[in-house]
Amino acid sequence: MLFMPSGLRGQVPAGTTILQAAQRFGVDLESICGGQGKCRKCQVLPQQGEFVKHGINSRLEHLSELTAAELLQQSKNRLKNGRRLSCNARILGDLVVDVPEESQQHKQHIAKAITAYDIQVQPALHLYTVTLPEPDMHSPISDKRRMQQALVSEHDLPVMDCDMSQLRLLQPALARANRQITVAVYQFQQIVAVWPGVKEDIYGLAVDLGSTTIAAQLCNLITGEVVATADTMNPQIRFGEDLMSRVSYVMMNEGGDAAMTEVVREAFNQLARRAAKSARIQLEDILDMTVVGNPIMHHLFLGIDPTPLGMAPFTLTTDQTQVIRAADIGIHLHPEARICTLPCIAGHIGADTAGVILSERPDLAEEYVLLVDVGTNAEIVLGNRNRLLAASSPTGPAFEGAQISSGQRAAPGAIERVRIDPETLQPRYRVIGCDAWSDDPEFEQKSAGVGVSGICGSGIIEVVAEMYLSGVIDEDGVIGPVPAKPSENIVEDGRTWAYVIMEGERSIRITQNDVRAIQLAKAALHAGCRLLLDHMGIERVDRIGLAGAFGSHIDVKYAMVLGMIPDCNLDNVGSVGNAAGTGARIALLNYPSRREIGEILPRVEKIETAIEAKFQEYFIDAMAIPHKTDRFRELSRVVDFPQAKRKADTSPGDDRKRRSRRRRTPD
Amino acid sequence: MLFMPSGLRGQVPAGTTILQAAQRFGVDLESICGGQGKCRKCQVLPQQGEFVKHGINSRLEHLSELTAAELLQQSKNRLKNGRRLSCNARILGDLVVDVPEESQQHKQHIAKAITAYDIQVQPALHLYTVTLPEPDMHSPISDKRRMQQALVSEHDLPVMDCDMSQLRLLQPALARANRQITVAVYQFQQIVAVWPGVKEDIYGLAVDLGSTTIAAQLCNLITGEVVATADTMNPQIRFGEDLMSRVSYVMMNEGGDAAMTEVVREAFNQLARRAAKSARIQLEDILDMTVVGNPIMHHLFLGIDPTPLGMAPFTLTTDQTQVIRAADIGIHLHPEARICTLPCIAGHIGADTAGVILSERPDLAEEYVLLVDVGTNAEIVLGNRNRLLAASSPTGPAFEGAQISSGQRAAPGAIERVRIDPETLQPRYRVIGCDAWSDDPEFEQKSAGVGVSGICGSGIIEVVAEMYLSGVIDEDGVIGPVPAKPSENIVEDGRTWAYVIMEGERSIRITQNDVRAIQLAKAALHAGCRLLLDHMGIERVDRIGLAGAFGSHIDVKYAMVLGMIPDCNLDNVGSVGNAAGTGARIALLNYPSRREIGEILPRVEKIETAIEAKFQEYFIDAMAIPHKTDRFRELSRVVDFPQAKRKADTSPGDDRKRRSRRRRTPD
Repeated sequence: MLFMPSGLRGQVPAGTTILQAAQRFGVDLESICGGQGKCRKCQVLPQQGEFVKHGINSRLEHLSELTAAELLQQSKNRLKNGRRLSCNARILGDLVVDVPEESQQHKQHIAKAITAYDIQVQPALHLYTVTLPEPDMHSPISDKRRMQQALVSEHDLPVMDCDMSQLRLLQPALARANRQITVAVYQFQQIVAVWPGVKEDIYGLAVDLGSTTIAAQLCNLITGEVVATADTMNPQIRFGEDLMSRVSYVMMNEGGDAAMTEVVREAFNQLARRAAKSARIQLEDILDMTVVGNPIMHHLFLGIDPTPLGMAPFTLTTDQTQVIRAADIGIHLHPEARICTLPCIAGHIGADTAGVILSERPDLAEEYVLLVDVGTNAEIVLGNRNRLLAASSPTGPAFEGAQISSGQRAAPGAIERVRIDPETLQPRYRVIGCDAWSDDPEFEQKSAGVGVSGICGSGIIEVVAEMYLSGVIDEDGVIGPVPAKPSENIVEDGRTWAYVIMEGERSIRITQNDVRAIQLAKAALHAGCRLLLDHMGIERVDRIGLAGAFGSHIDVKYAMVLGMIPDCNLDNVGSVGNAAGTGARIALLNYPSRREIGEILPRVEKIETAIEAKFQEYFIDAMAIPHKTDRFRELSRVVDFPQAKRKADTSPGDDRKRRSRRRRTPD
Repeated sequence: MLFMPSGLRGQVPAGTTILQAAQRFGVDLESICGGQGKCRKCQVLPQQGEFVKHGINSRLEHLSELTAAELLQQSKNRLKNGRRLSCNARILGDLVVDVPEESQQHKQHIAKAITAYDIQVQPALHLYTVTLPEPDMHSPISDKRRMQQALVSEHDLPVMDCDMSQLRLLQPALARANRQITVAVYQFQQIVAVWPGVKEDIYGLAVDLGSTTIAAQLCNLITGEVVATADTMNPQIRFGEDLMSRVSYVMMNEGGDAAMTEVVREAFNQLARRAAKSARIQLEDILDMTVVGNPIMHHLFLGIDPTPLGMAPFTLTTDQTQVIRAADIGIHLHPEARICTLPCIAGHIGADTAGVILSERPDLAEEYVLLVDVGTNAEIVLGNRNRLLAASSPTGPAFEGAQISSGQRAAPGAIERVRIDPETLQPRYRVIGCDAWSDDPEFEQKSAGVGVSGICGSGIIEVVAEMYLSGVIDEDGVIGPVPAKPSENIVEDGRTWAYVIMEGERSIRITQNDVRAIQLAKAALHAGCRLLLDHMGIERVDRIGLAGAFGSHIDVKYAMVLGMIPDCNLDNVGSVGNAAGTGARIALLNYPSRREIGEILPRVEKIETAIEAKFQEYFIDAMAIPHKTDRFRELSRVVDFPQAKRKADTSPGDDRKRRSRRRRTPD
C-alpha cells in the first residue's frame, strides 16, 4: 500500500479501508464525517499499473467494489473519474493511490511574512466526529468505552483516556445530538474536549511574552490561519521597567514573584478575550497555547521564583518544554486547554530565542547565520548546521526607547525615521502613523491625528547615526556645536549639549546621556557578536537576521553605520520579523516542531558573556562610532552618506579639532 | 546477574552497581540514602560458585573492590560476613547475590483481617533521595535537568517530567538542604513531589464510599501499615436516604448533582484531616488515594451526573479506572496527590464490587465462590477461575436498619443480637458496646454508658429469624399472638400486631411492616443469587463470603434460617470483612493490582436482574420464611432451633390455625 504524492507506505490487513491505512501511516488525508461516506472529503484516485521502483503491482481489482454510499455519490456526480471514497473502499491487495490536492487536510500552508518558511499545519490536537451506538442493557459497557470503540472503528484511533471534565459532558452531549459527538484528541492519545454533533474549528494562541509587550496570535488549528492578533503592555512594568528591576522587586518584596505572576496571567486572559472577540469565536474554542519569552518572563509566567536568574550562576529551574493545563494556572480558555512553554537555553537565553531558532532554523543552514533579537537584552545566535552558539548581551533597554529622554515605544506618534541636513544640521523626520516627512507641506495636516509624542528605538538609531554623519557628534559620541557650523539645533543642556529635533509644546531632544545609552547598548551588542565569531573561529558571517519589533523597524544601514552588528554583505542583512513570535506560532501549528526544538537546544553551546574576559575588551573597543571596519568604508560608497565621505578624508588634524570641541562643552 | 531469593535476573553493562541492577530488574532491595553508602540498608551477600541451573559462574572477583565507604562501614562493624553495599559494589562479570531479609524493602506484609490475603507493598509512588551538583555557569543546564541526571546516575531512573507545582519548589528545596532533595516518583515516570533533604514516609488513603457510610484507611505507602482509620456518615443522606431518592433529587433539582458532589468531597476532606491528625502526619504527606463505591456514588464523587444510572438502560459514563489530581476536584492533600477510582462493572455494579473482587480474587479460585456485598443494594459475584458472573439485587436498605421502625445503623447502643424464649416469648438481647446480655444481672450497670437506642441490621435479621423460630410469625411473615401462647410481648399495632423487644422510655418493637421489609430484602437477595446459579448452571456453591459491615455482624446461621443466601456447607460461609474497603487498600498499596482489576472486570458477565423474567418468579418464591431447602432441615440439626424442630413436625392442620390467626388481626 503506497500513498502518492507523500510516498508514505506500509502493510495493512486485507479489508482495511484506505482511510484507516492513511491514518495509520500518517498520510495527510481529510475526513470530516467520520467515515460515513457523507462528507466526500476523503476522495482518492487508485492507480492501475506496475510501480517497479516500489515493487507494487497496483490493480483496481485490489479494492472492494463500490459501496452503496459511493454509488450514491457517483449518481450525484460528486465522485468522478474513477475516484473512491477512502472511508468506504477496502484494500484487498497491492495498491497505489493518489491523494488529490483537495483531499489533503493541510493544503493551507501559512506563508510567514519576510522569510519563506512555510508552516505545515500539524497541530497537537485533531477533531474526530463519531456516532455512538445506543446503550443497551444487554451490553452494559460505559459510554466512554463506546466512544473509544467508535474512535477505533471509525478512525482507527485507539485513544488512551479522556480528561475528567470532558467525561462529565459526554452523556449530555450524546443526548443533545442523537449520539453524535466531536472530540478533540491531543496527540492521538488523550481526549481533551467533547462537543455534541459536528465541530469543525478549534483554535490556539501563540504568545510572545516580552518584558515590555505581550503579543498574541490567534490561529485556527485546522486551517493554520491567523484569525486575530492582539497585544498589550506587560503589566509587570509597574514592578520594574527592566528585568533586573523586576528581579530586585522580588528580592525585596515577600510575594513579589506571585504578584507579578498574577498580573501577567491576567494580561494573558485579557489578550485571549480580545483576540477571541475580534475573531468572533468563543474562548472555550481555544484549546492550545504556546508561549515564548526570556527566562525571567518564562519563569514568572510558570509561577517559578526568578530570583536565581538574577544572580550568578543564573540557574534556571527548568530549561525544558513544559506543558501545563491552562486551568491549573488560571488561564481561562477551554477547561482542558494545554499551554506549552518553549524550552530555554541558559539563564539569560530563553524560550524567545528558542522561538527565533525555530523560526529561522539556523541549524539547517549551510552558511553562517547570525540572528540578533534585540529586546532589553540582545540574544545572539550564531552558527550553521554543524554548530550553534548562543549568547546574551546586556544592551539595556535603550534600543527599545527606554532610558532615552524622549524615548517611547514604537507606537503612533513616535519618530521612527530621521535625516539631518549636513549643511544646516536641520532635522526632518517621520512619525509612525503618518506617511509624510516633517518637511512635507502636508505633514501638519496628515499628522494631526497622531501628533509627535517621542522617539522610538529605530528613530534613535537613525538620529544618532545621522548626528554622527552630520558631525553633530564625533567618534566618541560627544555632542558639540561644530565650530564651522554653529546651529540653533545644538543647544546647551546643563553641563553638556543636546541636539534638538523639535521644540514647542513638546520638546524632543537627543541629550548627551541619550547618545551614551545608545553607545553602551550598541557596544554590548557588537561585543557579544564578536565573542561568538571568536568562538566560532570565523571573521565574517554570511547572513544576519534582525529579529523583533526593533529589527523590523530599523534601517539596517544605520545599524551598520553605528557598528551595532558585525560586517556582512548588506544585501544579506535583514529583518526576520518577530521571529520569536513566529517560532511560537510554528510550535502551535506544527506539533513535531516542539520535539525538534527540544532536540536542537541542548546542542546549542552557550557563551556566558559575563565570564568571558574578552567581552569587556571588545565592549570598550566598540564604544566609538563608527566601529572602524572595512565595511564602513564600503558602506559609505553604497549609501549616500555625505558626512561619511567627508570623514573618509579625515586628516589627523581633525582629531585636535574634536578635542578642542570637547573642551568647549559648557560648564 | 541473578538475585536471590527472588530469582530475578538479567544482563547489565559492566560497571553497573548492584543497586542499579536491582532497580532495573524490579528486585526488592532497600536504599534510603540514595546510593551514598551511608544508610547501609542495601547490603547484599555475593555468592561464590557455579550456579549450573542458571548457567552462572558467580565469582567474588566479578565485583569491584571494596570502596572507601564500604571499608569505613566494615571498620565500624556494620558490614559483616562478606556483605557488600549494593550501591557501591559494581558488577564486572557473572554474579549471583543474595538479598538478605533485612535489605528487602517490602518485608512488612500487611495481613488482612479475616482472609489470608497478603498485600505486597508496591505502591504507585516511590521516594528517591538525590544530591544535585552545584550549578555552574560553564554548564548552564537547569536544576530540573540536574535532578533528572542525578536520578539516572544515583537510581538508574529516567523520569519523564515533574509536576509544575513541584518544579516551583525545586530551587527553594535545594537551597534549604545543601542541594539534597527527596522526590516522590509516580510509577517510575513522573516526579509529583519534591522535599528538601531526606524524606522517609509518605501516605495514601483507601476510601470506601458507601451511600450511608464513608470509611477511610490511612496507610503508610512505604511500609504498608494502616496508621489510622476514620469514618463518617455520607452527608448526601440529607438529599435522600437511598440511592434512588438521591437520583430523584438530581432529576428534580437543578444543580442537585453538583450539590451532592460538593458535600461528599467535603466529607472526604474531613475524613482525611481526621485520619492525618490521628496518625500525627501532615495532610500534605498524603500523595495517593483509591476510592471504591457503587456506580452512583462513584459518578457523583467524580462530578458526573448520575441521572442515566437511575433509569434503564442504566448507562455508566465510565466503567474504567480513572486517575485524577486531588486538587482538580477540591480534595486537599498533597497538591499533586492522585486519586484513583476503581472501575465499575455495570450500571448497578460498581467499583465497590471491583474492590470485593480484588480482595477475594474469585477469578483465582478453583471452587465456586459466591460473594455477597449487602448495602442498599446487594451486589453478588459468583464464579471461579473459569467464569465470573455479577448481578445487583434491589434489596433496599432494610438490612442496614433503614426503613425499619426502630432501625438504626450499627453503632453503640444498637441491638445486634436477639434470642426469644420459645416458651415465654420473652426476648433477651445484647447491644453494641456492652458485652452483657440484657438478662444478665450486670446488664443495667454495664450498658449504662451506651443505653439501648434501636436495632441494627444484624439484630433485625436475628429477631425476625427468632420470631419465626419461636412462632411469633409464620412462614408468610404474619405476626400474631399464637393462640396457645398469648404473650405480653405481642401487642396490637394499628390494624396489625407488633412484637415488643423493650418498652419504657424507649420503645423498641418489630412491626408487621418491619417484617415485610426484611422479607422483601431477603427475597431479592436470594432471587439474585439463584439467578446467578442458574446462569452458571450449578445447583450449589462451594463457598460464600459475606462482605461489608452487615456481613461482619450477622450470624450466618440466622441468614440461612431466613433463606437469605443459597445452600452451602455452613463451615464455608463466613464474613470476608469490609472486602470493598480492603480492595481499595490493596489497590492503594499494590499498584499492579489496579491494572489487574482493570483486566478482570471486562471478563465479568453482567446479569441484569431487571430484564431477567425469572428474577420476579424467584423473588416471589423466596418471600416465605424459611425458604424451604434441605439445608434448612440440616441446619435445624446443627443449631439448637427448638421452633425449627417443632416446625419439622408441622401437620396440614397447622395451616388452618395460621389462617385463623390472620383473621384475628385486630381491625
